[in-house]
Amino acid sequence: MAEFTRVALDAMGGDNAPGEIVKGAVEAVLKERNVQVFLVGREEAVRAELAKHEYDKDRIEVVNAAEVIEMAEPPVNAIRKKKDSSIVVGMKLVKEGKADAFVSAGSTGAVLVGGQVIVGRIKGVDRAPLAPLIPTAKGFSLLIDCGANVDARPAHLVQFAKMGSVYMEHIMNVRNPKVGIVNIGAEEEKGNALVKETFPLLRETKGINFTGSVEARDIPYGKVDVVVCEAFAGNIILKLYEGVGGVLIGKIKKGLMSSLRSKIGALLIKPALKQTVKAFDASEYGGAPLLGLNGLVVKTHGSSKAKEITNTILQCVTFKNQRISERIKDCIQAEPNAAE
Amino acid sequence: MAEFTRVALDAMGGDNAPGEIVKGAVEAVLKERNVQVFLVGREEAVRAELAKHEYDKDRIEVVNAAEVIEMAEPPVNAIRKKKDSSIVVGMKLVKEGKADAFVSAGSTGAVLVGGQVIVGRIKGVDRAPLAPLIPTAKGFSLLIDCGANVDARPAHLVQFAKMGSVYMEHIMNVRNPKVGIVNIGAEEEKGNALVKETFPLLRETKGINFTGSVEARDIPYGKVDVVVCEAFAGNIILKLYEGVGGVLIGKIKKGLMSSLRSKIGALLIKPALKQTVKAFDASEYGGAPLLGLNGLVVKTHGSSKAKEITNTILQCVTFKNQRISERIKDCIQAEPNAAE
Repeated sequence: MAEFTRVALDAMGGDNAPGEIVKGAVEAVLKERNVQVFLVGREEAVRAELAKHEYDKDRIEVVNAAEVIEMAEPPVNAIRKKKDSSIVVGMKLVKEGKADAFVSAGSTGAVLVGGQVIVGRIKGVDRAPLAPLIPTAKGFSLLIDCGANVDARPAHLVQFAKMGSVYMEHIMNVRNPKVGIVNIGAEEEKGNALVKETFPLLRETKGINFTGSVEARDIPYGKVDVVVCEAFAGNIILKLYEGVGGVLIGKIKKGLMSSLRSKIGALLIKPALKQTVKAFDASEYGGAPLLGLNGLVVKTHGSSKAKEITNTILQCVTFKNQRISERIKDCIQAEPNAAE
Repeated sequence: MAEFTRVALDAMGGDNAPGEIVKGAVEAVLKERNVQVFLVGREEAVRAELAKHEYDKDRIEVVNAAEVIEMAEPPVNAIRKKKDSSIVVGMKLVKEGKADAFVSAGSTGAVLVGGQVIVGRIKGVDRAPLAPLIPTAKGFSLLIDCGANVDARPAHLVQFAKMGSVYMEHIMNVRNPKVGIVNIGAEEEKGNALVKETFPLLRETKGINFTGSVEARDIPYGKVDVVVCEAFAGNIILKLYEGVGGVLIGKIKKGLMSSLRSKIGALLIKPALKQTVKAFDASEYGGAPLLGLNGLVVKTHGSSKAKEITNTILQCVTFKNQRISERIKDCIQAEPNAAE
């Protein structure tokens, strides 16, 4: 029998808090019997939302946190000073072993800082990467790292490759996931100093399916499952995906209004176009895990609605059942990096 | 009266050589009276193409070059060994002052290497950046640098900003072009070590309109006119543009075939969609200049047809008339970089 997964959920984070967050929690415990949710936030506001639903009172618990970290607050300061914020209180539940995972749609910066400072890294992990799923022609790939810690060293990228492989294989069910390093050409001798140093290390790394360089052009085609890069490059990739997609869709919509003929056509294709655009929207893929911590921390999109929150909670269940933290610990500690 | 602009054109470079290249040259001399073209390549093949057209024989001259550098050849070797290739012979015409510009649709690597080695850099220019125009919601921006020299230093990026500003202002007629540095956040304190060091230097650089950081998300919206970055990042941006655009268009086309309703709509919107996609195709914007050299070197897309070749030749005329090389020399030498 599967164990219970206990998820601490930031009830105050994101554009639709606390209403959609609470709703997402209620739906998650309805869908999955082995999950328990701690709704962390202003007790009164959370209880008011909970009162709108029927749910199993043994499986949703409210944990009071009087403060809220706003999106624009400098993260380091916020984590240090707002001890009674939903992010700090929720992460402490993970730290103390009272919860297995923490989920937030709130400030990305605060989640990144809190994850490292409060939950803490697995021994042997030097950096905890933020790894969102990005849409591709084939489905999705894991982009690792998109966090705030730039200028990574080769040994960090090797750890990202290992952690990303564990995640894709055991959470996303991709068998023997292909790992590629972002580069400006396919050949091993190409690249910047970081890539040139990392390439041979990845080739020697046991337990991953390293397939070599991946050019940015091939990322959206889904050439590899785990896209390894330093956070500055990862950030560019993630945000350019969003920007190019947004501008292109906008241009197409505008172009469709250019003649009567195309206007009529536009009415007919609207549902199909909407479906396609949605399938290529990175935010549809739910939460981005912050890997390598003593417990799972997942950042979901600020605009998350109940459905995304529910999916993320269920993802945490898989994380627990698949013992991802242990697997990451094993693969990091079994073969520590020679190069630092 | 404007001076003559003499353009050395690689008649053997690209997928459509020599036919479309020769045609492009013929059309250019028809359109612009103050231009002279040297068609560099295998004389017999070039003359056979020329025989298909009527043209002013004083203004198109064939310069024989018996060898051709193939796309896949290692560039440094190719430039060194194939002394009688169209790229080497054409660039030597620029080096010797017999031509003002060299245009090629051939191997990017060979053009980059040849530009630096044969044509040579303007005194004071440390690196010659490759700077293509990329499409945006507003029109286009200059992405500088996308070349092969990665791991640039802060002083290089400052020179890119200056050269890019001169190009956008005097060739593309953008008044007081906005210059931004690619970064992972809007604030000055964000970024990797390179960006953090470069940011204050750009703020102090005279003669450019530096507006601060630009996040990758905002590049396609045309937030700045000159997008300054190190070549590794520039390469990711250029190629991801292409990849995301290609996959998204492919998905939309497939989505349109999903129902009878959308199929009918698709027929009606086809012309408008085609127009839009074309406007957002980076290759539509013609050649990417390799700036900072003793003469202009322009790399056009490998799939260039006559129209693109003609446009690129006309771009060279503006380059000459606007005395871009002198302007770049002045702005680089007037205020050499303090930081190296």
